[in-house]
Amino acid sequence: MYSIDFYREEFLKYLDKNIAVKKPETLYEPMVYILGLGGKRLRPVLTLMTAEIFGTDYREALNAALAVEVFHNFSLVHDDIMDEAPLRRGKETVHEKWNVNTGILSGDVMLIIAYQLFENYKPETFQQLAKLFSKTAVEVCEGQQYDIDFETRDNVSIDEYIKMITCKTAVLVGASMKMGAIVANASKQDMQAIYEFGLNLGIAFQLKDDYLDAFGDEDTFGKQIGGDIIENKKTFLYLKAFETLDEEEKKQLLHLYSITPVNPENKINSVKEYMVNSGADNLTLKEIEAYTNKAFEVLNKLNIPENKKAALRVFGESLMGRTV
Amino acid sequence: MYSIDFYREEFLKYLDKNIAVKKPETLYEPMVYILGLGGKRLRPVLTLMTAEIFGTDYREALNAALAVEVFHNFSLVHDDIMDEAPLRRGKETVHEKWNVNTGILSGDVMLIIAYQLFENYKPETFQQLAKLFSKTAVEVCEGQQYDIDFETRDNVSIDEYIKMITCKTAVLVGASMKMGAIVANASKQDMQAIYEFGLNLGIAFQLKDDYLDAFGDEDTFGKQIGGDIIENKKTFLYLKAFETLDEEEKKQLLHLYSITPVNPENKINSVKEYMVNSGADNLTLKEIEAYTNKAFEVLNKLNIPENKKAALRVFGESLMGRTV
Repeated sequence: MYSIDFYREEFLKYLDKNIAVKKPETLYEPMVYILGLGGKRLRPVLTLMTAEIFGTDYREALNAALAVEVFHNFSLVHDDIMDEAPLRRGKETVHEKWNVNTGILSGDVMLIIAYQLFENYKPETFQQLAKLFSKTAVEVCEGQQYDIDFETRDNVSIDEYIKMITCKTAVLVGASMKMGAIVANASKQDMQAIYEFGLNLGIAFQLKDDYLDAFGDEDTFGKQIGGDIIENKKTFLYLKAFETLDEEEKKQLLHLYSITPVNPENKINSVKEYMVNSGADNLTLKEIEAYTNKAFEVLNKLNIPENKKAALRVFGESLMGRTV
Repeated sequence: MYSIDFYREEFLKYLDKNIAVKKPETLYEPMVYILGLGGKRLRPVLTLMTAEIFGTDYREALNAALAVEVFHNFSLVHDDIMDEAPLRRGKETVHEKWNVNTGILSGDVMLIIAYQLFENYKPETFQQLAKLFSKTAVEVCEGQQYDIDFETRDNVSIDEYIKMITCKTAVLVGASMKMGAIVANASKQDMQAIYEFGLNLGIAFQLKDDYLDAFGDEDTFGKQIGGDIIENKKTFLYLKAFETLDEEEKKQLLHLYSITPVNPENKINSVKEYMVNSGADNLTLKEIEAYTNKAFEVLNKLNIPENKKAALRVFGESLMGRTV
């Protein structure tokens, strides 16, 4: 096993070599652009790492890792259109740099190319990878739809929210790891366990993202603090705060989540005050810890050496301790 | 072998049984809606028919046929957004009935569901079907991109146009037939031949569509006559007319293709006059015949009984003789 940084570097080299502009350029340039914007490359790194955890050279898993990253970026391109987001990783989004039609069509071709990357595997492996991929991709679409539906609903429950982020984010983290296990021809039980590890870590990861969006440090987080509050996003933090407030406070929080002031400073501070006073901030941190621990418990089911379990634990802890 | 109508009926029953709304409804309702709008069901019928031509029960090919139809409708949903089309088969398009975001996301999930329909086949067949499907789907995206690029280009050649409609339309006709051959486990040579048959027939089919759009009968064609001319579409008819006109006439045709009058009657008639006077209308009919004959020649390479070749010929002739 190598370090996370090593896997990331190897993945980036492979990405560079295998994702290039071809004709018609107007279709493929946006793909190369979005895949070149950076990011943590968390998902492909997990695919490579998992292959090695189950005793297979990470190079065998490079195509699966690339498929996962291409899919993830496809979903970013289409989500950014739907959210009318002007920026992604500090740069113009595809539909801003080009236009909405280019975003739709380039996204489509990326989704197909992700499937094509599995063609390098033998039929049995191909089918296993493609089946898991399709199941996951459908769930990601469903998660995005729930996210959209929640915008216009006032009665979103915390369970529904967890289900939404599970679909929209966590299943792909679980699938990224399970793909590494499929390439490594791991046992069914190990495949299931590593999927659950990734799934729970993915939920914790998204909750941490929600937390950092409100309480992170602007310099290290890299995004404007309070973005979710500005957009009236019903995150775990918000729903938890809402749940514990009395009727009068609920009214006030609802009011804050119905306005879009030109200068959002006061709105952000007021909402955050509710989040702190209700104890929602600490409850969110506890929930993150709970899902992280759930992930770690699954490690016991895994049929791998102790040092590899330790590596997964260190990785999970670094993800949860992150300020980025 | 059964009649085209029989295959269509069987396909529609299977579609009805296997494509249903589930949660979240906002994601799946548009899929059921667009797939229920009707149409000739040409592609899935070809898949079923081809399976039987190579000696396999059409029921074995129902999932592949459904995949082809779901994919075709995915492309219609996304293309209609890009073309800002208000109507599809005389009914509201998905993005009109719902909104653009719903069109994007429902389209995405349809593309994935198409892949899932192949999961019912054994690994080798699955991989062959999915590979052909991905290759075809990428080409369809490329064709759509060329179509978009052509809108703002004044120097589109006839060769480029044929390449565009080959990608955007013909490859899926070829692939629909080849999928039937894959399910039937036909020889590589037969697979290749039936693909070429469908490809050439698909080109002829699209050229006929262009022809009918300008010279068809409004009552039987079901679309407004002159739609392509209103939208300044550089069809084969237009490019052929342009090619044969003298400099002065070219100027006038270019002018006509730069205006968008509220009442398009005069524009349509003037452009059609250029198409007739230049002989482009007859040259288009000749080209349709040439591609149809090319398709029929490929039949000689096929290792199937004469009566089945005759059935394919009858089918091709009925497609080309159509006024619908």
